[in-house]
Amino acid sequence: MSSDAALEEGTSLSLDYDKLSKIAAADQHVVPVVLQHAETGDVLYIAYANEQALRATLEKREAVLWSTSRNELWHKGATSGDVLELVDVRVNCEQNSLLYRVRPTGAGACHTQDASGTARMSCFYRTIIDADTLQPAG
Amino acid sequence: MSSDAALEEGTSLSLDYDKLSKIAAADQHVVPVVLQHAETGDVLYIAYANEQALRATLEKREAVLWSTSRNELWHKGATSGDVLELVDVRVNCEQNSLLYRVRPTGAGACHTQDASGTARMSCFYRTIIDADTLQPAG
Repeated sequence: MSSDAALEEGTSLSLDYDKLSKIAAADQHVVPVVLQHAETGDVLYIAYANEQALRATLEKREAVLWSTSRNELWHKGATSGDVLELVDVRVNCEQNSLLYRVRPTGAGACHTQDASGTARMSCFYRTIIDADTLQPAG
Repeated sequence: MSSDAALEEGTSLSLDYDKLSKIAAADQHVVPVVLQHAETGDVLYIAYANEQALRATLEKREAVLWSTSRNELWHKGATSGDVLELVDVRVNCEQNSLLYRVRPTGAGACHTQDASGTARMSCFYRTIIDADTLQPAG
């Protein structure tokens, strides 16, 4: 397997505990965002938003994030058509994280595909069974 | 209102876009964690975990986080008794975030209280209606 395939489809846990340091080193002023399917309640993924992304989300009524890897605004599904329609944006008590409640319009929200070649709805498709090992979520 | 009360109970949006920089500056190696009520699907809050917190969660079968403000292990509910029993821990495709699916055993998971003095189950009790303004989530 390529390193991406091992990370995304493998059964070994290899968590990246340095991503937040990289975000800070790149001087990105963002908060974490949980994206949740408003109808099923499924947690789709965690992403990041800065002020520009939040404003764009509220204006377009579709999920807009800040891509911390590409360092640019990320209008989810703008290319593929699989946008996430916005139901609402919520903020936590301490105002340091966001919840985007969304309605997916396409096949899935994750960039990976299951064994049948279908885009996965959620990025959380594996369960950690011990500190080293993953299995498909039941 | 005190500044905490304004932040937690007010209707002005004042997001802390610098928390992740502070985490990195304190040399904390953590990933963001979504805590989700396994039965209702409600997103309770976002917290952080390092390797020690993840191992403790898997061993105790209760949610254990890393407190980025106190810089110590945070066994949720250890003092109050309102622990979050673990259903499972999931990891995302890129292995840089976690989802703890939990069963709350107490009144709520948020440290704030609603107008009747009851602990709120979720920290996401306010909706952002424009870039400056909040209202109670419907």
